[in-house]
Parts: sequence; C-alpha cells; structure tokens
Amino acid sequence: MLIELKYVGDWRNLCNFAVLMERMTRQRNIAVLGSTGSIGRQTLDIIGEYPNLFKAWLLVARSSADLLIAQARQMRPHMVIIADEQYYGYVCDALEGTGIEVATGSAAIAQAVTMSEIDTVVTAMVGYSGLESTIAAIGARKRIALANKETLVVAGELIDRLMKDSKSVLYPVDSEHGAFYQCLVGERMQDVERLLLTASGGPFRTMPKEQLENVTAADALKHPNWSMGAKITIDSATMMNKGFEMIEARWLFGIMPDDIEIVVHPQSIIHSMVAFKDGSVKAQLGLPDMHLPIRYALGLPDGRLASDCRKMTIEDMAMLTLERPDFDKFPLLGTAYAAARKGGTAPCVMNAANEIAVAAFLQDKIKFTDIYKIIEKTMEQASHIEHPTYEDYVATNTEAREIAARLAKQRSI
Amino acid sequence: MLIELKYVGDWRNLCNFAVLMERMTRQRNIAVLGSTGSIGRQTLDIIGEYPNLFKAWLLVARSSADLLIAQARQMRPHMVIIADEQYYGYVCDALEGTGIEVATGSAAIAQAVTMSEIDTVVTAMVGYSGLESTIAAIGARKRIALANKETLVVAGELIDRLMKDSKSVLYPVDSEHGAFYQCLVGERMQDVERLLLTASGGPFRTMPKEQLENVTAADALKHPNWSMGAKITIDSATMMNKGFEMIEARWLFGIMPDDIEIVVHPQSIIHSMVAFKDGSVKAQLGLPDMHLPIRYALGLPDGRLASDCRKMTIEDMAMLTLERPDFDKFPLLGTAYAAARKGGTAPCVMNAANEIAVAAFLQDKIKFTDIYKIIEKTMEQASHIEHPTYEDYVATNTEAREIAARLAKQRSI
Repeated sequence: MLIELKYVGDWRNLCNFAVLMERMTRQRNIAVLGSTGSIGRQTLDIIGEYPNLFKAWLLVARSSADLLIAQARQMRPHMVIIADEQYYGYVCDALEGTGIEVATGSAAIAQAVTMSEIDTVVTAMVGYSGLESTIAAIGARKRIALANKETLVVAGELIDRLMKDSKSVLYPVDSEHGAFYQCLVGERMQDVERLLLTASGGPFRTMPKEQLENVTAADALKHPNWSMGAKITIDSATMMNKGFEMIEARWLFGIMPDDIEIVVHPQSIIHSMVAFKDGSVKAQLGLPDMHLPIRYALGLPDGRLASDCRKMTIEDMAMLTLERPDFDKFPLLGTAYAAARKGGTAPCVMNAANEIAVAAFLQDKIKFTDIYKIIEKTMEQASHIEHPTYEDYVATNTEAREIAARLAKQRSI
Repeated sequence: MLIELKYVGDWRNLCNFAVLMERMTRQRNIAVLGSTGSIGRQTLDIIGEYPNLFKAWLLVARSSADLLIAQARQMRPHMVIIADEQYYGYVCDALEGTGIEVATGSAAIAQAVTMSEIDTVVTAMVGYSGLESTIAAIGARKRIALANKETLVVAGELIDRLMKDSKSVLYPVDSEHGAFYQCLVGERMQDVERLLLTASGGPFRTMPKEQLENVTAADALKHPNWSMGAKITIDSATMMNKGFEMIEARWLFGIMPDDIEIVVHPQSIIHSMVAFKDGSVKAQLGLPDMHLPIRYALGLPDGRLASDCRKMTIEDMAMLTLERPDFDKFPLLGTAYAAARKGGTAPCVMNAANEIAVAAFLQDKIKFTDIYKIIEKTMEQASHIEHPTYEDYVATNTEAREIAARLAKQRSI
C-alpha cells in the first residue's frame, strides 16, 4: 500500500529518507572484484543462496584463471575480467561460446565497474590494488560492499572526500566493521563515546615476546579462529590487521583514532562493540564465519537476509573473555595509531611497507620481527604529504615499496 | 533549518516518521508512581541529573510518608499523592506553605496521571497495584516508562489491546527489556529469530536443589549483582522474576513465548540479546546499575543522555559466561512458560499467588520451596478466563489471592 506524506523537519533526518527510498527490492546485479579470493568465493556463495535477490554480473580475478573460468561457467555472469594479461587468451578460449564477455587489464576493471547495469560492487581484491576500481565505483555512484580494507587505510582522506560528493554508499564487509554498523543502526553518532574493536589476538597471543623472532610463515598461517587469505592471516599474526581496521573504522564512522579502543577477545564471537555516552555498550556477536558479514552487507539497506546457516547456541557463547592488547609485543598497533594521528600519506606508507615485508616473510626471506622493523624504517625514510591527491598516493606507494624492498633485501636471511 | 518534503512509500515505514516527529526536545514533566521505592528513587536521581530536560511533576508513594515529604521538598513537584489515606493529614501538614498539592487514595492516582501537563509517567509501583494507573495513563495517551512488570504479566492481553487503540507509547525501564529495545532500534521485527533473556541466576544458582528447602528470607535477599527492592529480590531467587520478564517481553515486542530463550549469565553485564534470522546476535551490555536503563528510557525517543557515570572498562567485561537455566531446580520458569502459552487469566493467577507466597516467605511463615507449591496449586484451583476484561482481572486477582492465602496458611511453619 502506498501512502503520500509531507514531512517538515530537520535536514539531518534526511539521511533516514534516503534509506527508506531505497527499500524497493529488486534483483541486484553484483560485481565481485577478487572473486577467486577467500572473500570473493564466499560472496559467490551468498549470491547463490539468494538467486531471486542477486545476480553475479561481473567477476574479476587477478591471475587465478582456472577458478575464474569455473566460477563463470557456474554463475553465468555478463562479463569476466582477468587482470593479468598473460591469461587473457586462455580465459577467452575456455569461455568461448558461453556468451560471457572476457576482458583484461586494470583499466578494464575501472571501466567495467561503472556499467549502468551494476548495482553493487564488492571490492574483495587483496591490498593496494583495490584503490583504483573503488574510486571508479564511487564516481559511478554504486553501492559498494567494501572488503578491501587497504582502500580506506591507504586513501581514507581521499575516499572520504569523494564519498561526500557522491551518491555512492559504502557498506563494510569486514566482520568488525559490520558489527559496528549493526550496533549503530538506529543510533545517533553524537551519542557514541568510543568504538571497541575486538581482535582475536592471532596465533601468537600467548607466546612470549622473545620467541616471536623465530616463528615461521607456516606458524603464522595457523589462525586460531578465522579461515582467511595468506596476507591477512599474517597481518593478523602481527596485529597490523587490527591497526588497519582501526584506521578503516576511523573513516567509515568519522571517529577519531583515539576514540577507537582495541580489545583482545580470543574466542572471536563478539565481532566488535560500541560504547555510548550514557554508559551503555552494544555488541554484535556471531560464529566466526565471513559469510555472515557478507550476507549482512548485501542485505543492506533493505534488512537482514534470513538464512539456514547454523545458528549460534548458548554453548557457542559459553565463555567470552576480553583483555587489553599488548602494545609492547605487537608494536605495529602503536605504529598504526601514530600513522592514523599523523594522517596524510603516513598510512599509505605503512601499508606499502607492510605489503612488501609480508610478501618477503611469506617467502621465508625475512624474520617475523623484521616486518615491524621494515615498516618503521620505511616510515622514517619516506616523504610525507599532508593532503594527498590520488597521484600523490600512487607516487607515495611506489616510493615506500622501493624503500621497503631495499630494507627487506638488507635483512634477507 | 527546516525543510519540506513529500514522501511516497510503504505504510510500514510510517513508524519511523512518528519517531522523527517527536524529536523536538523540550522540558518534560514526569509523574513518578512509586517514587519512594528503589526504581522511583533512582528515577529522581536521573531527573535531577538533567534539570533542563526533566521536571518531577507528580510523586506518588504508597505509605512511605517521610521519604515522600523529603522528596517533595527537594524536587518541588506540582503534586504529591500518598496512596494510604492514614498518612494524608501528616503529609498535608508537612508540606503546608510549599504550594505543593497533596492528595490521597488510588482514585486520585488514576486521575492525576491524566493531567495534561504530564508528559511521561514512570510506573514504578510494586506488584499488581500498578495496573489501574497504567491503564489510566494509556487512556490519556501519555508516554509510559514501564518499570512495573506485573502490569504486562497480569494483563498483557488487555494492555496490548489498549495500546493498539491509543497514541500512547511504552518504553521499558527494566534492564533486560531496555536491552532488547536497544538491540532492536533500526532493525525490523520480521528479521528477529529469538530473544535471549539473560538472568543472573540469583543467589542460589550454584546451590544444590536439596538445600533450597531450608534457605531463609535473609539468604534470599542477598542478590549477587543488583540492588533492588525486597519483593523483586525474592522473585529473582526463585527465578519467577525471569518468568515475568519473559511474559513482559512477549507483549512488549510481540514475540511468542517459545521464541524467548532464558540464558543464565552470572556476571549481569550482558543485559539481554537478540538473535536474528541471518545468524547474527546483538547484545546490550552495561554495569549492573538501574540508573542506566532508567536514563535510556527517559531519553527516548530523542536519543541517549550523555552522563558522567562511571563507564565500563575492559576489566569489567573480562570474563562473561553464559549457560542454560536449570528448569528442574527453578520450576517457576516452567510455570511461567506454561502460563504464557495458556494466556487469558493464567499469568494473572500466577502473579497473585506469587505476591501472597513471597509476602508469606518474607515474614518467615513458609519455606522457600513452598512458594512454588502454592503457585502451582493456586493455578490448578483458580478459574480461567480466555479473553478477560479489566473487571475479570480484578476478580481473578482477588480469587487467586484468597486461594493462595489459604494455601499459605496451611503450609505455615
């Protein structure tokens, strides 16, 4: 039943209208950038769970050609893009006769996400490579389900500026930021005192600091609760990941870094919390399964998507513990706060150095504790720009990677 | 800045408008029914905390004349009512020359709450006595901060009917129902799978069942976490209180009894949770202090009231445990579910029998385990009315109290 109503009120409440206006459900065409990665594959699971609501329209992979081909045959998207040009011919041949368009190269990605048929862009690429296409999606006013945290870490200031000028909306896919979002619906940001960002503490939470020097990539890849990609699992072991998430939350919710508190919660059941100025705290809980935050993000703003997934029982929540993180053992936490406070290109430098250092560690070329040392040194040596443009970020990223690569080579085992 | 806007949309979203419309803050005149009780006193604390927002307009007490007089001298309300007529002259004399009106008798209460100056009625009387004035307040379209849970337990069906016809709004003051409310803002009821109602488990949570027979009123009055009135503390020890709250939630949120799960959480930090159909759970947490839910209820629907109160730290949340309740040791939980499923006057009978049995236990006249036996027997013997009117509730209440009183006398130690 449709009604007509004249509303006279405060302009700040207008945002509520935008949400109401969008509540006209229809099948949404979804672009999945990074469809062969961990988040990408789980996103396709969710799209498959609700065939009436969603259609995979565009799948993008960096180099996993075989999986991309298999996904295309199953999901029947309008288009696939294989970023690495050496696999272009191979993918074209495999999908010949299916009617699925095939493209290649990063310029093709930035162009494809602006297609008018696309409603939602899921940005699930790994690392810095997500930035360009996210900016293109914002420009095209798409709904963005943001799974690529480096976008906001590297270029939060720029994205924030672009979002203010755009009609695009940004929904977090991370379990932590999804938790903040869930705790904040129906609340006023002015009532928020601080965000409590939970961290599992990673595989080395209880290991004495002195032993960290000798851990291997294989040790660090054993995450206690979450099944994730290799890079993010190492970031979790160093707790750099939590620093990234702090910076991401800072931009997503417009909160100062020092109003975000990191809390170690080894069970990974509480996905994050919001403390309000009246003394109340709200938390979002769930099983540690990335399908949940993806399902939530794709359901926005209409509402939650009912699912047959296993539901949490009292036994799953039997004991929940919370403790303060050890900034001494995990110095990258302090590095992240310092970078967030400094602003400008500082987080971009930190991210670039981290990408290089983690890659070197995964190849057993440097020690675990060298990751921190390389990042700190890179941040000392790289130049700083207060209010960077997109080109500044690109230049800074290149510069920082070069510095970090040189440092990694020096420390090579 | 005012704007004008025409909205065409689904009628279900209209409720959002009602909330927006009410966001025009002004000083609210508050009637506190039961101002000398535990919740009443804490409500006056909150009114005193925000003198620009709230004014105590009417204070009502049953028989605590001296405290009522002291409160009147401090808060300067427009009117006070002492329900027990024998103290009327005493209160009149004490407040002579202050300009504060004084009245007496239950009819005066029902009349006073309808005064046009009153914006919000806080119903903090103990037991069944809250029903009549709550109905009067609903009729007068007041905003009601409901702290008297017996109102919905006894006459939920009637209140539900009256609320649907009225423009009154009902905000829960209980910490558990306040928690549900906080977890539900911004959510759709259709997305809710079940409510998780937390219970401290009371002072006898870890006591073997056999020992319950010999506990005294003094033992039962030692609640581990909450400082509350005597009656509710005994109700907490028997877990009858949690049964009441389940029935209260059933009416407040329109949820079937079997979709409300009781969860024992001895630390009383998680005040309740909501499980959604997408697998997500939201929880509200806070220190166990009734000022918090009172502050929240009085702030609605404008937003939360910032406070200097002590804020929860990580250490306060260091370990949170959850377990299933023992329906065998606390049989009144099962009684409450049975009464809720049966509906009609069944919960009214249960409540009346409980009031009599608890009073007898507090006077050391019956054993702790007799409370359950008296309630069960009373429910077997009392008559049942499927769709009761107000008069039916009054008659049922009287009948059930007589049966229970007779049973209590028989079991008298």
